[in-house]
Parts: sequence; C-alpha cells; structure tokens
Amino acid sequence: MSERVVVVGGDAAGMSAASQLKRLRGDDVEVVAFERGHFVSYSACGIPYWIGGDVASADDLVARTIDQHRRNGIDLRTESEVTAIDLDRREVEVADQAGATSYRMGFDQLVLATGARPRRPDVPGIDAAGVFGVQTLGDGERMLDDLERSRPRRAVVIGGGYIGIEMAEAMVKRGLEVSVVTRSPEPMATLDPDMGRLVHAAMEGMGIDVRTSVRLDGIETDDDGRARAVVTDGGVLDADVVVLGTGVEPETSLASAAGLPLGRWGGLITDLQMRVFDADGVWAAGDCVEVIDLVSGNRVHVALGTHANKQGQVLGTNLGGGYATFPGVVGTAVSKVCDLEIARTGLLEKDCEKVGFSFVTAVVESSTRAGYFPGAQSITTKLVAEQRTGRLLGAQIVGREGSAKRIDVCAVALWNRMTVEEMTGLDLGYAPPFSPVWDPVLIAARKATTAVARAVRG
Amino acid sequence: MSERVVVVGGDAAGMSAASQLKRLRGDDVEVVAFERGHFVSYSACGIPYWIGGDVASADDLVARTIDQHRRNGIDLRTESEVTAIDLDRREVEVADQAGATSYRMGFDQLVLATGARPRRPDVPGIDAAGVFGVQTLGDGERMLDDLERSRPRRAVVIGGGYIGIEMAEAMVKRGLEVSVVTRSPEPMATLDPDMGRLVHAAMEGMGIDVRTSVRLDGIETDDDGRARAVVTDGGVLDADVVVLGTGVEPETSLASAAGLPLGRWGGLITDLQMRVFDADGVWAAGDCVEVIDLVSGNRVHVALGTHANKQGQVLGTNLGGGYATFPGVVGTAVSKVCDLEIARTGLLEKDCEKVGFSFVTAVVESSTRAGYFPGAQSITTKLVAEQRTGRLLGAQIVGREGSAKRIDVCAVALWNRMTVEEMTGLDLGYAPPFSPVWDPVLIAARKATTAVARAVRG
Repeated sequence: MSERVVVVGGDAAGMSAASQLKRLRGDDVEVVAFERGHFVSYSACGIPYWIGGDVASADDLVARTIDQHRRNGIDLRTESEVTAIDLDRREVEVADQAGATSYRMGFDQLVLATGARPRRPDVPGIDAAGVFGVQTLGDGERMLDDLERSRPRRAVVIGGGYIGIEMAEAMVKRGLEVSVVTRSPEPMATLDPDMGRLVHAAMEGMGIDVRTSVRLDGIETDDDGRARAVVTDGGVLDADVVVLGTGVEPETSLASAAGLPLGRWGGLITDLQMRVFDADGVWAAGDCVEVIDLVSGNRVHVALGTHANKQGQVLGTNLGGGYATFPGVVGTAVSKVCDLEIARTGLLEKDCEKVGFSFVTAVVESSTRAGYFPGAQSITTKLVAEQRTGRLLGAQIVGREGSAKRIDVCAVALWNRMTVEEMTGLDLGYAPPFSPVWDPVLIAARKATTAVARAVRG
Repeated sequence: MSERVVVVGGDAAGMSAASQLKRLRGDDVEVVAFERGHFVSYSACGIPYWIGGDVASADDLVARTIDQHRRNGIDLRTESEVTAIDLDRREVEVADQAGATSYRMGFDQLVLATGARPRRPDVPGIDAAGVFGVQTLGDGERMLDDLERSRPRRAVVIGGGYIGIEMAEAMVKRGLEVSVVTRSPEPMATLDPDMGRLVHAAMEGMGIDVRTSVRLDGIETDDDGRARAVVTDGGVLDADVVVLGTGVEPETSLASAAGLPLGRWGGLITDLQMRVFDADGVWAAGDCVEVIDLVSGNRVHVALGTHANKQGQVLGTNLGGGYATFPGVVGTAVSKVCDLEIARTGLLEKDCEKVGFSFVTAVVESSTRAGYFPGAQSITTKLVAEQRTGRLLGAQIVGREGSAKRIDVCAVALWNRMTVEEMTGLDLGYAPPFSPVWDPVLIAARKATTAVARAVRG
C-alpha cells in the first residue's frame, strides 16, 4: 500500500507542497489535502487590489483551481476542517459540510499548512456588520458585496501596516473618504519612524486622513447593529465601513492542542527541510511557522506568500525524496500606497537595539533615473550598518515609481553579510532611463561608510 | 609650495577625481585640469536621449559646469589639449586655442582620464557629411543641427550594440525610418545569440529594419559629398543620415607615447587605488583604463559612466590622503530600445568557453508583476552557472517595463560568488504590483539548479 500524506490547509504552502510531492512521486504516494474554506491556492496578497478594482475577479487571484489539483492526483477536500490531530494514533479528525458529519483519517506523514489568523482587537463592536477583515477570498467577497450594496462614503482603516495602507489605497480608488488609525507614532511601523514620516506625509498628500499614536476603544453601531463610527482615545471617526488591517499571528491551535512545539511568536518550529522538531513524520510550512532571521539569528514570524510558496516547495521536495532547504529570511518586504513605494529589509534601528547591535545610519535623497531623464522620481534610501565592522544590518526605501524593488540589492547584500564599504563597489546597472550614474543604493552605501569611519575615529 | 596635480581629461573620471581631491585637501593642493573640448562633466550616456528628444538641451546633461568647478578651486582649462607627457621631466605639453599657442607645465602627480575614442570602420565614405558619431556633446550638437537643417527621412545605424540600439530608438522617436546594420548574428552581441534574437524580434516589431551578419563596405555619397547610402555585402541601404555606433576603445595614445604600460585591450593598467603600475605619481581612471573582471579574473575594458565616476572618486580619495579601492566589475550593463529593456551581467556562454568554464544554462519566461496585476509585462531571464559547483557565472534579461534593473540581484550574487542553488533561497521583495510570488530571478535560479544537478548526474 502506498504511503499516505495528509495536508492540512489548501493555500500557498500546503498546495505547493502537495503539488511538488505529486510531481516527484506520482502514484507512489497518496496525498489528501483538507481546506476548511472553499478556495484553494490563491493570492491573499492580491485581495486589496481586487477590492480596489485593479483585479477584476477572485478567479484572477486563484493560481490553480480545485479541478487542476484533482487532475494532478491530489485528493483535495474543501469545506473540510481538520478539528484534531492525534499524533499517537497518527490520525486526523475531519469535519465536513459545516460540521454536519465527521470522520477520522490515518496518515503516514502530516503536513501542517494552517496559515495565519488575523489579530482582532478586543474592543466592543469589533464583530459588527460593516467591519471587515481581508484575510481570505471569502472575506473579500463579503466586503465587496457590502461595498456594492451599501455604497459607503467614509471608510476607516484600523492599522497602518501593509494591509492597512493597501486597503487605504483600495478605498481611495473606490472613491471613499479614508481615515487610517494606528497606535504607532507613524504609519508603517515596519520602517523606522523617520522613514514612516515620509509615508505619513505622502498619504496626507493623497487626501488620506492619518491618525497616529491613537488607541482603538471600540466600534459604535447604529440601531441595526451596523458600524457607524470608530471610537479612539483621540476622538470619534464616522465610518460607513471599517477595515481591519491589524496584522496576523500563526494559526497553530491544532498544532498546539496536539502538543507540537511552538516558538516565541506562536509559530511551529521546523528544521531547514521543514520537518517539525521532535515530531517524527510531521512537517510544516507557510504562515504557521517561524523562520530564522539571518541577520539577527533569531526566529521570527513573517507571513508572506513568497515564503509560503518557497517553504511548500522545499517541504514537497524533501518529502518527495529530494533535497532542498529553506535557510531563512532577511526580512524583505515591499508595498505601495497609490504611487508611493515602500520597501524594507533587515533590521530596524529598534531591532538592532533589541538584538544588541551598535549601529550607524545614513539617509540619502536621490532620484530613480538620471535627474535629466523624463519620469525621474524622488527616492529616499536609508541604510543601517554595524558600528566598527560596517556590516549592513538593514535598509529602507520610500519613493515614487521605480523605488521599491531596489531593496533587492540590499537583500542580497544582507544575505551575503556584505559591509557598506564593500557595497560601494557594487557593479549595478546604469543607464539614464534606469538610474542616476550613482545608483541611490551606492550613494547611501558611501554615506554609511563615512558614518562607520567617523564612529570608529570618534 | 603646494603640490601640483595635473588632470588630463575633463569628463566624469577626471573631474570626479579633481573634485574629490579638492574636497579632501582644499588649498593644500593645486589642481590643474585640461579638457580639449569645451564641455566638461557631462553624461555622454544621455546623448541618445537628447537627440531623441527625451532631454531638452545639452545643458541638462552637464552634471557640473566649468564655473562650478572653478569656484571649487580647480584650475580648469577647456579647449586645451595635452599633446605630450614627459615623465622624466614631469611635465605635460599643452596646446590651446586650436593649437595656436602651446606651453609646458610641471606636475607632481599626474591623473590620466583621457577616456575612449570611437572605433571608426575603415571604409570609403566614413568621413562624409551626414555620418555622425555620438561620443561627445560636440558630436551631439553637430548631429542635431544637421537633423534640424536637413530633415532626413531615412537613418541607417551602423552597429547593434548599446549605442546602436539607443540611437535607433532616438531616430524612431524623431519619426525617421530606421535600419540597423550589424556584423553580429543578432543585435546586442553583449548578449548570447538566443537572447539577442528576442531583441531582434522586438525591434522588428517596432518597425526597425535589422540587418544582421552583414559586412559594412562603405558609405556612398552624393555630388555634394554627403552620405546617401550605406553599402554592405547584403545590399545597399538608402540613408539620409548615418549614425556610427561601432563601439569605443581606450584613448591612450598619449600614455602609450609616454611609455606607460598598456593592457591587452589598449587600456592603462592600474592597481586597486587607481595608480598606474610602475609609474610613480601617475594615476588613471575612466574609459582609458582596463579593470579586473571579478568573474573571470581577467582584465577587461568597459567604457561606462558609472565606472568612470567610481574610479574618479576612488582616485581622488587616495590622492587626497584617504583610502578607497575599485575592486573591479562583474560586467553589468542595462539599456533599452523603445519599451524593450535589456540587461546583462557576468559572462556570456562564449566568454565561459574562452575562459575555460564548463557551464549549464537556464532560460525562463515570466512576468514583471503578479500575472493578474495590471501592467504585468513579459520578462525572459537567462542564467549561466558553472557545471558541478553551480556558481553563477552570468545573467541576461530581456523584457518590457520593469525588467532591466532586476539584473542587479544577479550582479550582487556574482559579486559574492553565490551558487544558483543558494540564490533560490534569496529573500527578494514580493507584492503583486512588483513581482510574481516567485520572482523571475528565483524561477531561473531553480531551473538552473536543476540543470546543474542533471549535469552532475549525467
């Protein structure tokens, strides 16, 4: 009898793993994948653009359909929720049809790809009608239905991180008046405050009302129980629709109940091949795991589709008898709000302090193309480097079109533990339509090199 | 008496060096810079865009004016040509006012920044009216004057490299019918032929007539001595204007006459600090030097403004009592023809063969953004990796908007001698407006990793 692999979770990580496994082992392995929702293999990162109208339909966000997976030989069961894992008996318990029936299924190998769940602020009214998360395609559908039915005029977005600013853009594109409320001193707390301030100013320039350092106290509802205002310690904001962009945490309640080891952020801990530590035949990938931050050496939780896909692929390769590793991340993320591009990699100043790195910084303003070339846009680049050694520790970029993907140069430099002085020599692409003769990253590296030298002398 | 530094050549390398030197040593050093033309510190790379109309005037291409340099304390003498170097007496001979007067000047330190000169095919008619190089601002002025006066209808561009395709774009933008003639089997011989073929097809799609594997036999002139056709072994092409984009070689005739050591490509050979080997107190930077190719270890000649500026800066820093090095290049270059972007770094297949690397390749087609995101464009990425070790040896990218600067990821990977398998783990920026969930470089790295593994097994 062939080995049976049970996959829990049918999005990026789970289905990448299942697909890679089938590709490598074919009929030699039975793969059963359970998904509690009715969508699989979709781009959750695309939801804000669907709601904002850049993407026409949910179908566009689906990378591979249920039928495609089934044709590839995966026994994919949607609207089927795994409710318990029994590691001793090597069985999962499954509830289908909204819990109407349930059954148990044995496994030889178990893949956990349960993703992340949104953090919902614990305040009155948070579950009211008119309050929307944007975590799943189902969430997106519900929100779009409502937007088209209720024709709201004012939106309040709770949270100033990636989802928050992307949803702010979506609401602007739909013609709503938009407020963004965040407890951080600046939006984009994944940037240092001096860089977040640039985002703040740009968002205000787009007509978005940004309320920083504000505590959310609750959602006021009308007589029908629908949200009508957001209550904060800085005042009450009228709202016809409220969007939650308050971050996510690993969805590991099943794993925890089964006694599997969780890390500091509540995520599963795996080895480089995505095998859960101390749990024979149990694997995990995607937003439910913690990963090694290659800059600090610590484990961190980073919910990103690109990591989920890579980890799923690595997992499937190893489970399929091949060899691959997921060495970790350096913390790269890019985003945009309207025409403002935002990127980061590595450590923030506050991360350096927490970890124990002494550092210097350099911030430079430059342009995305030769200054004389049409379409040259402003770009601000910040580098953080270790004192004395000059090792690059982090980079942040805020600018207009053509800015964000430049962070990749810093991501590869971090991966290779380059110093900022070494970076000044980098042979980056130059031609007037693509870069000034000194690429912004090179200018920043030069300035950071000077800062390191000064700190050594001082 | 303060030390006197004589700089020969007033463009990027020479004036960067002079400026940095003055910044570091102020009045402690006398800097005399000679430029035979009447423009200094300009972006020669911008000339095609000036001719094509993207850039309004030559002034826009000037990074720093003569007056600015003089205010910074540099004794800058334009239309002053250094005609000889006497290393024993430590003097240069200078001719000014079109050779009307001449004088000698002593130096303590000599900086050679004499740039490159265009290679002019040795065929009949090459010096006729209506035939233009685009090497200097003066060349650009002459060509623009002629284009406005003679209102040509048909342009033939000789050469299918960077300057050739950029000038083809400029001519298209000015509304001319354009032919490009090249002796290579495909345009962009700085790419492998399979990638050059994509450029070829795209150029034809833009209405540019591309003639490959063609020998230039001469330029036919009319009774007034003006070019009227380009004669090749593949036929005669009518031409109202002929543009030379046939590459450059180091301008080192002065250095050679002075007995300074030249390399295989005719460029000056320097150490890492830009001191000319075996020539005390003589420095060189920019298009007149050869540099170390960090991938092959060989010296190469690469005429690029970005290297000239870096080398000038390094030279000025060292001459100014500081410390900096120019370690070499990895061969990165980016360009575009209309909306087609072209990029390369590292070695081509034929370079690998010449150097002795056995290699595998991988080519992947992908998109610049998530496939469902508006404005997603096609991008083809090719990687060349060493057999067995999997070390990245080169990368080439051809695609539409958002393609070219992705080469920087490969340039940094080359710099750090990464293997393609290591590259599969890179933490590159992902969000739907900026990249598919698998960045094109990562997809190519995965495919190349498979090719390496197959070659090992095979």
